[in-house]
Amino acid sequence: MENKKIIFPELFFTDKNLVGRDVCKISRNLSDLKGIFADVEAFEKMPQDKLAYEVSSFLPEKEGTPGGLYFGITYLYPGKVGNEYMMTKGHYHASIDRAEFYWGLEGEGMLILMDEQRNVWAERVFPGSLHYIPGGVAHRMANVGSSLFSFAACWPSDAGHNYAEIAEKGFSARLIEVNGIPHLI
Amino acid sequence: MENKKIIFPELFFTDKNLVGRDVCKISRNLSDLKGIFADVEAFEKMPQDKLAYEVSSFLPEKEGTPGGLYFGITYLYPGKVGNEYMMTKGHYHASIDRAEFYWGLEGEGMLILMDEQRNVWAERVFPGSLHYIPGGVAHRMANVGSSLFSFAACWPSDAGHNYAEIAEKGFSARLIEVNGIPHLI
Repeated sequence: MENKKIIFPELFFTDKNLVGRDVCKISRNLSDLKGIFADVEAFEKMPQDKLAYEVSSFLPEKEGTPGGLYFGITYLYPGKVGNEYMMTKGHYHASIDRAEFYWGLEGEGMLILMDEQRNVWAERVFPGSLHYIPGGVAHRMANVGSSLFSFAACWPSDAGHNYAEIAEKGFSARLIEVNGIPHLI
Repeated sequence: MENKKIIFPELFFTDKNLVGRDVCKISRNLSDLKGIFADVEAFEKMPQDKLAYEVSSFLPEKEGTPGGLYFGITYLYPGKVGNEYMMTKGHYHASIDRAEFYWGLEGEGMLILMDEQRNVWAERVFPGSLHYIPGGVAHRMANVGSSLFSFAACWPSDAGHNYAEIAEKGFSARLIEVNGIPHLI
C-alpha cells in the first residue's frame, strides 16, 4: 500500500504571533493616519515616522475571491493624539455584507463599531475576548492601555476595504481619555 | 456630550475554550460515526455511547447567510477503532468553494484532506499550527495522540456541510497506526 503524503505545516499561529511561509507584513506610521484624529495641532507636533501599527497577514487567495478566507494579527502601539487614543484607520468592507471575527491576544483595546445609520458603540477587547462584526458595520481598534495591544482577525477574501468613507466622514463618535478612563463621545 | 455605549464582551475564546452567550454545543457518540471506520468488527465491539467528539460553536447568523462567519472549537477524544485513529465524520462544504481555517489548540492531531479528484493528503496539527482549507477540499480531523485533541475553526456561514458524499464513498485513504506511527494509506 502506498503511504500518501503527510505534511508538516508551514504556518503557525502561536499565542501572539503569525509566522510562516507567505505571511506578509505591513506597517502604518503616524503619517498614514493623517486626518483621523480630532486634535490636528497635537498630531502635527508628533514625529510623523512614529510606528502606529503593524499587521501580519496570511492571504492565501487573490483579493476578491469568493468563498476564501484571510487571517491576520494587528499590533497597535500605545499612545494618544491629544486626548484621543491611538487607533487604526477603520473601514467598512467594500462588499458591505461581509463579516469579520476579531479576538484579543495581548494588552487592552477597544473595538469601535459604526453601522450604516452612523450609530456608534464600542466593545472592550482583552486577551480572550471574541468579537463578531456583522456585515454593514464599520470597525476600528484603539489601544486604551499603556502597552502593545494585539488582536487576531479572520475575514472573507472577498470583503475588501472601504477606507474612503471613513477617511471622508470619520466615525460619528470619538474614543477619548477623560480622567484616565476611555469615553466614547 | 453624550457618552455612547461601551459594552463588555459576552463571548470569550480563551486558549482552549469558547464560552459565553449563544455558544452552542453538540456531541457525537461512536454510534454517530457508524460506517466511517474500516474495521467494522472492532467498531461493533466498542460501547456505542462512547463520546467521540464535542463541538462548541458560535453561529451568529442563520445557516446559509452570505458574508457571515462562524467560529468553533472541536474536542476530539483519543482512541482507535482497530488500527484506525478516532476521527470526525468529515465533509465537503455544501457550497463547495467555501474555505475554512483550522488551528491546533491542544494535543496531537492530523488534518486529512481530499480534493475533488479524490487525492488525499494530511497535515500534522498541534498547538500553534494554522491550516487553510481551500474550497473544494473535504476535511476531517483525527486524534493521533493519547490525550484530548482540540482545535479551533472559522468558516463562512453559507458554507454548509456535505456529509453525504463522505458517508457514501469515504476518503480514498485511511490514517492508521503502524508500529506506533500514523500512516496514511
